[in-house]
Amino acid sequence: MPNVIVVIGAGSIGQAIARRVSAGRQVLLADLRQENADAAAKVLSDAGFEVSTAIVDVASRASVHALVETATKIGTVTGVIHAAGLSPSQASPAAILKVDLYGTALVLEEFGNVIAPGGSGVVIASQSGHRLPALTPEQDKALATTPADELLGLPMLQPDQVTDPLHAYQVSKRGNSLRVMAEAVRWGKRGARVNTISPGIIFTPLAKDELTGPRGAGYRRMIELSPAGRGGTPDEVGVVGALLMGPDGGFITGSDFLMDGGVTAAYWYGELAPQ
Amino acid sequence: MPNVIVVIGAGSIGQAIARRVSAGRQVLLADLRQENADAAAKVLSDAGFEVSTAIVDVASRASVHALVETATKIGTVTGVIHAAGLSPSQASPAAILKVDLYGTALVLEEFGNVIAPGGSGVVIASQSGHRLPALTPEQDKALATTPADELLGLPMLQPDQVTDPLHAYQVSKRGNSLRVMAEAVRWGKRGARVNTISPGIIFTPLAKDELTGPRGAGYRRMIELSPAGRGGTPDEVGVVGALLMGPDGGFITGSDFLMDGGVTAAYWYGELAPQ
Amino acid sequence: MPNVIVVIGAGSIGQAIARRVSAGRQVLLADLRQENADAAAKVLSDAGFEVSTAIVDVASRASVHALVETATKIGTVTGVIHAAGLSPSQASPAAILKVDLYGTALVLEEFGNVIAPGGSGVVIASQSGHRLPALTPEQDKALATTPADELLGLPMLQPDQVTDPLHAYQVSKRGNSLRVMAEAVRWGKRGARVNTISPGIIFTPLAKDELTGPRGAGYRRMIELSPAGRGGTPDEVGVVGALLMGPDGGFITGSDFLMDGGVTAAYWYGELAPQ
Amino acid sequence: MPNVIVVIGAGSIGQAIARRVSAGRQVLLADLRQENADAAAKVLSDAGFEVSTAIVDVASRASVHALVETATKIGTVTGVIHAAGLSPSQASPAAILKVDLYGTALVLEEFGNVIAPGGSGVVIASQSGHRLPALTPEQDKALATTPADELLGLPMLQPDQVTDPLHAYQVSKRGNSLRVMAEAVRWGKRGARVNTISPGIIFTPLAKDELTGPRGAGYRRMIELSPAGRGGTPDEVGVVGALLMGPDGGFITGSDFLMDGGVTAAYWYGELAPQ
Repeated sequence: MPNVIVVIGAGSIGQAIARRVSAGRQVLLADLRQENADAAAKVLSDAGFEVSTAIVDVASRASVHALVETATKIGTVTGVIHAAGLSPSQASPAAILKVDLYGTALVLEEFGNVIAPGGSGVVIASQSGHRLPALTPEQDKALATTPADELLGLPMLQPDQVTDPLHAYQVSKRGNSLRVMAEAVRWGKRGARVNTISPGIIFTPLAKDELTGPRGAGYRRMIELSPAGRGGTPDEVGVVGALLMGPDGGFITGSDFLMDGGVTAAYWYGELAPQ
Repeated sequence: MPNVIVVIGAGSIGQAIARRVSAGRQVLLADLRQENADAAAKVLSDAGFEVSTAIVDVASRASVHALVETATKIGTVTGVIHAAGLSPSQASPAAILKVDLYGTALVLEEFGNVIAPGGSGVVIASQSGHRLPALTPEQDKALATTPADELLGLPMLQPDQVTDPLHAYQVSKRGNSLRVMAEAVRWGKRGARVNTISPGIIFTPLAKDELTGPRGAGYRRMIELSPAGRGGTPDEVGVVGALLMGPDGGFITGSDFLMDGGVTAAYWYGELAPQ
Repeated sequence: MPNVIVVIGAGSIGQAIARRVSAGRQVLLADLRQENADAAAKVLSDAGFEVSTAIVDVASRASVHALVETATKIGTVTGVIHAAGLSPSQASPAAILKVDLYGTALVLEEFGNVIAPGGSGVVIASQSGHRLPALTPEQDKALATTPADELLGLPMLQPDQVTDPLHAYQVSKRGNSLRVMAEAVRWGKRGARVNTISPGIIFTPLAKDELTGPRGAGYRRMIELSPAGRGGTPDEVGVVGALLMGPDGGFITGSDFLMDGGVTAAYWYGELAPQ
Repeated sequence: MPNVIVVIGAGSIGQAIARRVSAGRQVLLADLRQENADAAAKVLSDAGFEVSTAIVDVASRASVHALVETATKIGTVTGVIHAAGLSPSQASPAAILKVDLYGTALVLEEFGNVIAPGGSGVVIASQSGHRLPALTPEQDKALATTPADELLGLPMLQPDQVTDPLHAYQVSKRGNSLRVMAEAVRWGKRGARVNTISPGIIFTPLAKDELTGPRGAGYRRMIELSPAGRGGTPDEVGVVGALLMGPDGGFITGSDFLMDGGVTAAYWYGELAPQ
């Protein structure tokens, strides 16, 4: 029975982590769009991995559940890399909450039912989740523990409360980290672990497009004024992901690792503070 | 001019990180007590490192400054591992704030003045800092950016506000993480990085004594009900510390890495929740 | 002055190492063919790296020297990844010796003149070098230390001695490892290090073509009868390459790391022994 | 059923590897002398590991077999770190061959019968094995594959052939590497891997004594004239050992990793060449 690493989202961060943890295992690469899954599968296959693909809409329980069934038919699910989501420039607040917040809750719940003992998961959130001011303990708990199918009904997530895509994104990413924390308890009962990585500006092809696009000046300023003075690479996220998923991360679960070149630090206490 | 790694605090977590980043460099091991520094220096010397010792009282600017001078006389300071502090069972609230909060602010400020380009620092905080409910943005900012010598004068830190050692400890550790964030901005201007690690129950000799001491039942329950179901080892912290201080951590600064076996998760959302 | 990582050879093994050691640095990617360099540069650029390209014929001193000049104009050469070469199915014995043996000697000599203190290099050889029976100490020394421009004049390398491409390849790869050993002495005087990695069957796109090509049955048998029972991935070589080039490899120089899934072991002492 | 890491030899190299791979597992620490085992067990226990001890004489099959039985009673043997042996200054040629060569063959054979699928082993040999001139293919094969109990009867190992302790040591260490290669084939059939590390001068307490002892000048010259210009630390060996034993080493088996600061390079092709 082979070991399976499930990668949700065809982007380069998920791929970079998968490259580090999938040798000798089967990769199941799922994306909303078959052509994206195929393209990423081609890259990973060229990189020497055994890869199959699936379509998944993470905002649909039936679809996520079907992905779980596909994965468990291939083998034992020892790793889950959840890197799918909508960015604030791509969608409405409602769509962002549905995919980024609810979708992640579904993925954590459904794969938490089958993850192997000794297995591990990583959810890719965002530095944006670290920019939102603190929520109340009740709000934190609601995001962490409300049953997935009731999550979008929370008062704090209604259209009058979440009025712009960036806010929806920040709440979703904060919610990812909180949800991972609560799920870490449940995954722990199976002998598995799960953590969040909150990347900053990572030089994916998409990000590089943004840097030269209409909002490029803002991104470039963010990089220039950040403590590290540069963007990150997907492979740098891959190293942290591999640590979290592997034996060196055996004592780490329910945590959120911010890797953003210090942009969050500069946002709160440096030159990137909002005026 | 040799490279110097400054280790403040003679305990096994600081040693474990030092072991991973100090080959071919000089270790300067500083502790409040010469006998502690000597004992740790013996261990590291037996482990193949070049070690010298110093006495430091991190709660005294003059003492921290003298340590900086000792270090820069030896060579270029490329790494700082700050792992000294008082635990809540050891001291009064005022003493804890002075050593753990103010002392860390001093260390970050004084070594931030001399850290080499490409250098890095790690501050050992605690999972306790993740247990304190959220502070206000103003409180966060005050802990992060108030000039070190005015820090203990903050209203939120006065005896009527911080009435027990545990609270003092939690505030201090939260403050460490915030202070590291603000200092990451300043260290970044020198081309250096600094991060926090917040360990949970790590099986140091001291912790093992606690496990069999009067409060041992509580600690053992914490471990049993945690997602990981075990305590950590200093060497596991050493691996994360080495990642943060080395090239793989080049995009990570101003962050706080919680590694606690999921105890914090279980405190907020699991069986370790306060009744 | 930026730090430069020079990658010679556009294949996926060199790229995988480069991905692990080049964040925040400039990559100079050189290949015999501009279109290969461009394609690899596109991949690394999409992966977030700053990349420029150059053409190099490693079998020409003038060309290698020009590459050195290009590199030093960009910045300080802190890393060299030499992964260019001809495989035994691609060329004549003479061409293989010229590119794989003499070319590597040139690269080591020319970059050994400019490598930065603290810098490091990795040469990608092959498990084939571990399959050749032992040479005499005199032959070893000749391959290790004969001035590069006299190397191809050695009696042991003349056409009557090296009659088939596989033998030429094995001698060249053995020679790479010996040359690296001798150059490690010279690089050490600059405070730099250099090592060899001898990979076995790594699932590059080229190798995957071979597996389904006319000699595929032989390769598949080799994998099936090997102790690991699988091929490797470029990223697995990348991890070892990053260790050798980074601080964790600080005590390693002049060594040759065989990573072949045990094929060499099975060739000498197992089911892959020649009949 | 807990996972067990068996450490044979109480020295600091074995401990350093154990520290890196034993979190959450049981360590069984075996040495010829109970007091050595106890002292090392104390260190590892203070470092947070669960440790039990055993006495073993690796030169006795009954004793090694008893150790296997002790280990399998504790749990599943997922790791073996064999770091016991006699040094050339400690014993006669016959004793060295019996412990270092035959004893290692026994350990590999006996633990190869019980190692868990996915498990791995590391044998600590020495740079000395890389200093011996090449043996004939027949000699290599004899050292690799002669049944353990006939090994010391080989003509090449008789007193007239091996006349001094250093030669006995070099042959033994060469033999370790060859034996590991042959055993890698057998361990592979169980889904396990095994490799050799050949360290150079590692600053263990014993080595530090040597540096100040009667042969200290020779050791110090070796270090000064080596490419790295320094000795190594046990923890540097620990990092390589952890890589070899963990998932990043999944494609590595039957190999021998020389980590000696380039002393071997300088012996063959540099200033450490015998006059």
